[in-house]
Amino acid sequence: MTQEQQLCDIGFIGLGVMGKNLVLNLADNGYSIAAFDLDHEKVKEAIALDKEENTSEAARVTGCFSYTELLSKLKAPHLIVLSVPAGEPVDQVSESLIGAGIQPDDIVIDTGNSLWVDTVAREEKYKNNFILFSSAVSGGEEGARFGPSLMPSGSPYAWTRIKPIWEAIAAKVDPATGKPIERTKPGQIVDSGDPCTAYIGPAGAGHYVKMVHNGIEYADMQIICEAYHVLRNGLSLPTEEIADIFAQWNQGPLDSYLMEISVDVLRHKVDGEPLVNLILDTAGQKGTGLWTAVSSLEVGAPAPTISQAVYARSISSFKSLREQASEVLTGPVQKSYSDEEKATFIDELHDAIYCAKICAYAQGFQLMKQAEKEHGWKLDFASIAKIWRAGCIIRAVFLQSITDAFERNDDLENLLLDEFFAKQLNENQQSWRKAIANITLMGIPAGALSSALSYYDSMRSNVLPANLLQGQRDYFGAHTFERVDKPKGKKYHVQWSTDNKEMIKV
Amino acid sequence: MTQEQQLCDIGFIGLGVMGKNLVLNLADNGYSIAAFDLDHEKVKEAIALDKEENTSEAARVTGCFSYTELLSKLKAPHLIVLSVPAGEPVDQVSESLIGAGIQPDDIVIDTGNSLWVDTVAREEKYKNNFILFSSAVSGGEEGARFGPSLMPSGSPYAWTRIKPIWEAIAAKVDPATGKPIERTKPGQIVDSGDPCTAYIGPAGAGHYVKMVHNGIEYADMQIICEAYHVLRNGLSLPTEEIADIFAQWNQGPLDSYLMEISVDVLRHKVDGEPLVNLILDTAGQKGTGLWTAVSSLEVGAPAPTISQAVYARSISSFKSLREQASEVLTGPVQKSYSDEEKATFIDELHDAIYCAKICAYAQGFQLMKQAEKEHGWKLDFASIAKIWRAGCIIRAVFLQSITDAFERNDDLENLLLDEFFAKQLNENQQSWRKAIANITLMGIPAGALSSALSYYDSMRSNVLPANLLQGQRDYFGAHTFERVDKPKGKKYHVQWSTDNKEMIKV
Repeated sequence: MTQEQQLCDIGFIGLGVMGKNLVLNLADNGYSIAAFDLDHEKVKEAIALDKEENTSEAARVTGCFSYTELLSKLKAPHLIVLSVPAGEPVDQVSESLIGAGIQPDDIVIDTGNSLWVDTVAREEKYKNNFILFSSAVSGGEEGARFGPSLMPSGSPYAWTRIKPIWEAIAAKVDPATGKPIERTKPGQIVDSGDPCTAYIGPAGAGHYVKMVHNGIEYADMQIICEAYHVLRNGLSLPTEEIADIFAQWNQGPLDSYLMEISVDVLRHKVDGEPLVNLILDTAGQKGTGLWTAVSSLEVGAPAPTISQAVYARSISSFKSLREQASEVLTGPVQKSYSDEEKATFIDELHDAIYCAKICAYAQGFQLMKQAEKEHGWKLDFASIAKIWRAGCIIRAVFLQSITDAFERNDDLENLLLDEFFAKQLNENQQSWRKAIANITLMGIPAGALSSALSYYDSMRSNVLPANLLQGQRDYFGAHTFERVDKPKGKKYHVQWSTDNKEMIKV
Repeated sequence: MTQEQQLCDIGFIGLGVMGKNLVLNLADNGYSIAAFDLDHEKVKEAIALDKEENTSEAARVTGCFSYTELLSKLKAPHLIVLSVPAGEPVDQVSESLIGAGIQPDDIVIDTGNSLWVDTVAREEKYKNNFILFSSAVSGGEEGARFGPSLMPSGSPYAWTRIKPIWEAIAAKVDPATGKPIERTKPGQIVDSGDPCTAYIGPAGAGHYVKMVHNGIEYADMQIICEAYHVLRNGLSLPTEEIADIFAQWNQGPLDSYLMEISVDVLRHKVDGEPLVNLILDTAGQKGTGLWTAVSSLEVGAPAPTISQAVYARSISSFKSLREQASEVLTGPVQKSYSDEEKATFIDELHDAIYCAKICAYAQGFQLMKQAEKEHGWKLDFASIAKIWRAGCIIRAVFLQSITDAFERNDDLENLLLDEFFAKQLNENQQSWRKAIANITLMGIPAGALSSALSYYDSMRSNVLPANLLQGQRDYFGAHTFERVDKPKGKKYHVQWSTDNKEMIKV
C-alpha cells in the first residue's frame, strides 16, 4: 500500500449526533474519512460504529486525535467537513486549523445552523487561510444518516469539488413521482433520482435559505399543533381518534413528514397512556425560527404565520403565568357537538390547515425573494423547492407543487399568484373561514391558522385601510402621504393644527 | 449687563420640526437658548419664530452659526439638547462638539429615536469627552411645542441638572382626573399637575421604553384602521358615518388622542370629498415599531399584535402585488345587513377594539418586563404608564387604569392578571369573539384584532398544545422533553427510530 492510498478523501470534525451519521453516510458512499472530535471518546465511538456496519475489508473511518494528525491523514488540497454547534465553536475550530497548518486552497465546509451574516463575515475573515464554504443540512439524525437535504453556498470553485460528494450523500427524489426514494439500511446507497442538493449562491445564501426552511418548519409544526389543540379541547376527542384523523389527512394534500411523525407521536403509549399526555407543554427553540421572523421584519416581507409560530413557543414557556391567568380569565362556555357537526368541522379544519400551510410557504418564499433583492443574490426558487422534496424536515409532496409553480414562472412574485395555488385557495377559503370562525368562538388560540387567513385576506385587498394610517401619521408627525388622484411619488401634507387645515404639496 | 447674564442656559442643536418646537417650549418656560443648525436658514427661522411669539424685552433665542460659537454662548458646565435624526448624525454632532472643545462634565441630551443599544454604546464611547444622556420625546410637533412625554435615561448626576427643565416643559396631568391639563397657546405655561417625565434608568433604558411606546402606538393605530376597514368594506358605511361612530367611541373607554385624530382625519374634506378616500393606502414606517417586534422575538416576550401591525404596514407597501392578487383570489360573497344587525355588530366591534387594545398594552408591558430582566434594569411601570397619560401619541385615559394596576401591584407580571383588566376582558371577551368570527366570515383582514384574541386565549390556556410540539422536536432532532408526571427539569428522549421506541432519561 502506497502512502497515497492511505490518505483519506475527507476530514470530518465534530462527531455528535449529526456528525457521526454524516460520517457513516459518506462512508456508505465510498469516501474514506479521517474523523476528529475534541472528545476522544466520540472518535472511538465513530470508529466502532463504522466497524459494526462496514462489510468491506479496509477501514472506512480513520480516527484522529489532533488537528495536526487530521491534516496529515488527508489528500491535498484538504477537504474538511465541520459539524459543530453554530457560533463560537466554528471560529475555535477555524483558528485551530490555521494553527495546524491548513492551506489557502483547502476547503472547510460549515454544516451547522450558523447565522447567515456570520457565514459572510467568516468567509471574508479566513479567506487568506482557507476557503470557508457553508452547507446547511436538514433532516435531523435520520436525514444525516440516510440522505439529508443540503443547501450549499460560497466559492463556486469549492462547489465543483464538493458537488459529486454532496449529490452522493443527499436524499433522492424519484423525478416521475416527486416522492423520496427510500434508503433506510446501512450499506445501502441510492445512485439514481434527483439529489436534494443544489448550489444556492454566494457565502451566506445557503444558511439564509436553511434559516427560512426552519422558519417554515416552525409554522408547519405550529399549524399541526393548533389543529391538535382544537380537536383535543374544542371537540374533546381522545388522542387515538386525533391520531386517526391525522393519519387520514396524511393520505391527501397534507401528506408530509411532519404529519407522519405527529401520528407516530400521538400513537405512542407508555403504560397504556398516550405519551403525549405526559409531555410538558413548554416548547424550546434554537434560534433559526426567530431569526427568520426577525429577518422578515427587517427586510419588510410579511411573515406573520412564522412569527406567530415563534411567539406560540415563547407563550408556552410562560407556564406559571398561564396557570395563574387560567384562573382569572374566562372563555366561552364549552359546547357539545353532534357527530355530523364534528365531521363537518373536521373537514373544514383540514382545509384550514391546507390553506394556512400554503400561506406559510408563500410567506417564506416571499421573504427569500425580498432577501434576494436586498442582498443581490440570484436564487433559483424551483431548485430550492426541489431540494426540499426529500431529506429535510418539511419534506412533503406539497413541495413538488411549489417546484412546478416556479418552473411555470421563475419570476413568480408570490405563490398565491400561481394558478395551482390560487385554485386551491379559492376552492377552500370558505371552509377555512368557517373553521377559523368556529375556533374563535370555541376559545381555542390558533394564531398561526388565523394569521395565515388575515395574510390571505390582506394580500387580496386591492385597497387596505393604510390610507387612514397615513392620515394619522401625517396628523401627528407630518409624515406626508401620496394621493390616488395625483401622480405617483408626489407628497402631500395637511396643516392639521391650523384652522383652515390647508393641504400643501411638499 | 455682565458677561454672566449674557450666557444662555441651554444649547440646542437641530432645528427641524421637533427641534424648533422644543426650543419655543423651553423659551416659554423661561430658559434662554443658544440655537444651532448646520442649515443656517433654520437658525434664522428659529430666531424669527421666537421674535413673533416673545412678549418680553430680552431675546429668548440666540442664533449660533458654528459649534464653537454655540459652546461660547453657554453657561458652564454646558447643557446641550440634540434634536437630530437617529443614527449617524448623532455621532457626527458628537465628534464636532469634541472638536469644538466640549468638556467631560458637559451634558449632551439625545432626544431622537436612537436605537437603544446605540445609546448604550455611545454613552461608553464618549464618556471621556462629555456625558451622553438620552431622553426620547413623544408627542410629535404639537407635543414638542406645548408639552411632550419625556423618557430620560443615563447618568443620575445629569438627571439632577435636567430634571427641573424637563418637568417644566413636559405635558402635565391633573392628578385628580388623570387627564391632560390643556396648554395650547404660545407664552402659556402649566406649572401644576403631574409632569409627564420620570427618570427611567441607565443608558438605553429610556430609548428602549420609547421604542416600546412606539410599538404599542403601531398596534393602537392598526387596531383603529382595522375597525375602519370593517366598517367601510364589511358594513359598507360611508366615511361620515364611520367618523361619527369613532367620535362616539371616543367618549367612552376608547377615549384617546389617536381615536380623536382619526375622527378629524375622517371628517376632513377636499372639494366635498373625504380626504381619506384620496390618500394612497401604502404606509411608511421609520423603524421603532419593527425594532419593538424584533426585540420581542429576541427576548422571548410574545408581542404578536405589535408584529401584526408592523406586517400590516409592509403588506400595504406591496400595492401592485395586492392589485394582481385581488384579481385571482376570491373571498366570501358580500352580505347585506339589517340596521339591527349593524348596530349589534358595531357594539361588538367596539368591545373587540377595547379588548385588543388591552392585550396590545399587556404585550408591550410584558416585553418591557422581560427586557428589564434581560438587561438588569429596574423599571417603574406605574411611573412609565403615568408619563404616557399626556403628551405622547398613545395618550389616553386608559393609561390611568394601567398606572392604577401597577400601583396596586408593582410586581404585576402581566396586565391581564390585574383585577380591573381581567374584569374588562371577562365582560367583553364574548362580544370580541363574535366580532372576530364575523370579520373572518366577511373576509376582512384583521391581524391585529385577531392576534390579540389568540394572545388572550393562549395566555389563559393552562395547557397549550406544545406537548405535541415537544414530541415532534424529540422525534426528528432528539431535543428531549420534560414530563408532567416527573420532577421538573428531568429530560426524556424516546428512541423513535428503534423498533421498541424505548424512552430514556437523559
